[in-house]
Amino acid sequence: HCYLHNRSISGKSSRPISTLFGNIGEALKMLLLILVSVAFFEPVRSYTYDTYFYKQIVDHFSFANQDSFIQRYLINDESWDNKGPIFFYAGNEGDITLFAENTGFMWDIAPEFNALIVFAEHRYYGVSMPYGNKSFTDPKYSGYLTSEQALADYVELLSYLKAKIPGAADSPVIVFGGSYGGMLAAWFRIKYPHIVQGAIAASAPILQYIGLTPCDKFGQLVTSDFSKESEPCADVVRKSWAAIDRVVDDEMSLTWLNDAWNFCSPIKNSDDVKMLKDYLTNVWTNLAMVDYPYASDFLAPLPAFPIKEVCKKMQDSNLEDKLLLLEVFDGLSVYFNYTGKTKCLNIDQQADVRLDDHGWDFQACTEMVMPFCYDGINDFFEPTPWNLTEFADECYKNWKVQPRPLMAPKIYGGRDISAASNIVFSNGLLDPWSTGGVMWNVSESVVSIIIPEGAHHLDLRASDPNDPKSVIDARNLEKIYIKKWVEEYHEQNIEFGNYVLNEHKNSII
Amino acid sequence: HCYLHNRSISGKSSRPISTLFGNIGEALKMLLLILVSVAFFEPVRSYTYDTYFYKQIVDHFSFANQDSFIQRYLINDESWDNKGPIFFYAGNEGDITLFAENTGFMWDIAPEFNALIVFAEHRYYGVSMPYGNKSFTDPKYSGYLTSEQALADYVELLSYLKAKIPGAADSPVIVFGGSYGGMLAAWFRIKYPHIVQGAIAASAPILQYIGLTPCDKFGQLVTSDFSKESEPCADVVRKSWAAIDRVVDDEMSLTWLNDAWNFCSPIKNSDDVKMLKDYLTNVWTNLAMVDYPYASDFLAPLPAFPIKEVCKKMQDSNLEDKLLLLEVFDGLSVYFNYTGKTKCLNIDQQADVRLDDHGWDFQACTEMVMPFCYDGINDFFEPTPWNLTEFADECYKNWKVQPRPLMAPKIYGGRDISAASNIVFSNGLLDPWSTGGVMWNVSESVVSIIIPEGAHHLDLRASDPNDPKSVIDARNLEKIYIKKWVEEYHEQNIEFGNYVLNEHKNSII
Repeated sequence: HCYLHNRSISGKSSRPISTLFGNIGEALKMLLLILVSVAFFEPVRSYTYDTYFYKQIVDHFSFANQDSFIQRYLINDESWDNKGPIFFYAGNEGDITLFAENTGFMWDIAPEFNALIVFAEHRYYGVSMPYGNKSFTDPKYSGYLTSEQALADYVELLSYLKAKIPGAADSPVIVFGGSYGGMLAAWFRIKYPHIVQGAIAASAPILQYIGLTPCDKFGQLVTSDFSKESEPCADVVRKSWAAIDRVVDDEMSLTWLNDAWNFCSPIKNSDDVKMLKDYLTNVWTNLAMVDYPYASDFLAPLPAFPIKEVCKKMQDSNLEDKLLLLEVFDGLSVYFNYTGKTKCLNIDQQADVRLDDHGWDFQACTEMVMPFCYDGINDFFEPTPWNLTEFADECYKNWKVQPRPLMAPKIYGGRDISAASNIVFSNGLLDPWSTGGVMWNVSESVVSIIIPEGAHHLDLRASDPNDPKSVIDARNLEKIYIKKWVEEYHEQNIEFGNYVLNEHKNSII
Repeated sequence: HCYLHNRSISGKSSRPISTLFGNIGEALKMLLLILVSVAFFEPVRSYTYDTYFYKQIVDHFSFANQDSFIQRYLINDESWDNKGPIFFYAGNEGDITLFAENTGFMWDIAPEFNALIVFAEHRYYGVSMPYGNKSFTDPKYSGYLTSEQALADYVELLSYLKAKIPGAADSPVIVFGGSYGGMLAAWFRIKYPHIVQGAIAASAPILQYIGLTPCDKFGQLVTSDFSKESEPCADVVRKSWAAIDRVVDDEMSLTWLNDAWNFCSPIKNSDDVKMLKDYLTNVWTNLAMVDYPYASDFLAPLPAFPIKEVCKKMQDSNLEDKLLLLEVFDGLSVYFNYTGKTKCLNIDQQADVRLDDHGWDFQACTEMVMPFCYDGINDFFEPTPWNLTEFADECYKNWKVQPRPLMAPKIYGGRDISAASNIVFSNGLLDPWSTGGVMWNVSESVVSIIIPEGAHHLDLRASDPNDPKSVIDARNLEKIYIKKWVEEYHEQNIEFGNYVLNEHKNSII
């Protein structure tokens, strides 16, 4: 069951059309997750690891709840020489085995670092459920699903591993993560620099919060991915919303549309129209995020540079409604019917999310409140404001929690991360999530790597013959930083380690 | 009601003597608190402030408990010019008004900085009780008493004040604290550098944890404060424990002791002997902590350099038991009867702790697990090991919680605070708590200030004509760092502020 998708895509509610798009931001948040599943269709290769479990404290910051739970983690020590660094993946919203299969960069470079590979599952995902089947039934169970608790899990786990694995005590930890996992990686270094020596935070939108990033930037970047290809192409999308409204408003025209677009289930009411518009919004956004320079197989098989292909089909924005919608359907077909074998357009179909990501909507309704809005002028989406009150009401209704929209910025620093060190923020310029990312060099050791041809955390994926030079450069630069952090750790640690050792020698504890 | 004192001093338990000192560490922890009350007897001057209240979240890191409570804070804006820094006292274990009255350094220097003064009360102390009278009745109420939650309170409060007080948004925050408050000050800067620009952490024993500081160092420093004055004086104390045992073991001798030491209630059983030894341990430790170079009025009125005065009375360690104990009584009299008006020696009397510090024992039993031990050779105390299991059992019995002895080091970094910045750790060499303090320069901006003639956080107190040069120098150095941090903040903030401003201008949120 995936709550988020039901709410934002399937559109089971019967609210009037004017507010139907109130939750569009959530639909986009969903895409953040969907992206993770990009490679699940055809992993480049498979990786081997041993599976372990660690007994975690449910609440690391208080003593009211003294429960514990079992956290899953994966280890591969094939490259490990008992001296190299620990490459630690900060698990995000999904089954950790999927991240292990889809973060090829860590596996690719582990041999040259003699690194130990650890993938830790995020609490409330995969099999790491603090309260089993009850985990999402009430805030008294679900309430411990926060990034702060997840990071504290990782602190405990790493402290344990460093104590138990021979040699690991003296090994620096490099943390990796993409998307929400990238946010966790950055925050891990920010909050626990004594535990992790450096962070590779790929496509991490740590600024996607109220007051930090204008809510319209995301949609603007999706739009520019299309308008850069062709202005008329973007205009086709921009004009399509009103065209749909006019067409569905007339019974004969609606019948025509149902036939022309070949829906699996014909459009009948305003809920179906909302579903259609949500679907289209997701497709255009999705295309921007996966606008990879090589063919990929995502929610549907896609050609290289899929936006270019879509825009070949949508060249004239001055057509009357029905002709315009025929163009849109042609463009859409690149996405949903590139193989030519799809029988009908199923706008009710959920994205094939193999992530067990039930918890993300809870996170979005508590700490990960990310606003998105559209004006239809600077972007090509249907004008949709973002309304915190409405959002909060919906969250309370569904989860019995009140969102704390400024919790993450207050705790982690928002734009002010000037006191941090040893973080690489990588962002692809094609990725709309880059609008909420750190796109400037904060300091000598907190740096931004821009990947012009990059989509969502492309750099974390396994190397591929079709990789553009920019992502190869990015990965090489990331390796240089990792080497530097490892060296600096050992320089520091000689002094520090001896000091601690001497103290311990005298201790009678 | 003060639980900690009951347990460690009054000795209501009837455990065999061999384990009677199991809780001696807690007695010492108590002294950390008592110290705060040093000046409550004769505040140098009184300070004026307005009292406010802020609605806080009980649990900042989870959503299972969505309760709120009222936190008290005090403000003085007499020196405030709407541009200067905010001087923020990170309230520790007690009524915040007492800290406001006894942190003269902040008041003394506020005018030259045009600073706004804020004293925030620590949750579960003073009137800031999250669950009123129920606050300590069960872990489901008491469990939110942790340093992490307290710091998050301060983050919320400062965010609120910066938003509400004209000019404060652009003001740097300098955090001050002494003892546990000093630990909070340092950790505040470590964890929330985007909220506080720098920290003055006075006598902050952030290393007083298992594995970080040998448990015997504290007692050794108490001892050296005496042996530096006179070796025989320290030997008198060292030999007194066995002498007491031999004397109380013989009925006639016990009768003699009860008469010679003029106890308010005569010694009758092993519990009373434990109480006596706890009392003596506290007195010697106390003297080390308040060995100020000017007369002070603490638990009892004391002369300048009280250890010197005590040692004038305890010069011969080679006397037989009864004569030795007469010497001890003479030395002790400096402490409990300097005025000559005390009628009898009341070893059952609780330290006059005006702090409402009921919560500290809970903290000591959860996160603030500080081990102390004695061998009687390198220190002059009765040999007493520190036993975590015994300690934990006692904590569970009393509070229904299990201690997490490594929680604070894991969360805050232990000895590894190399990634931190802008902290002054000040320590007096006479203060036994300095053994758990940061006594080395960690980096250019995380520095240690040693005050050779200093006792427990003397530098935070109001200036006094009798101040030694070393504390005047320390305060001047602290002012230089504060000035530097304020300047650096404004240099940074010009760029940063404009950047944020431009972003916000474009925002349609």
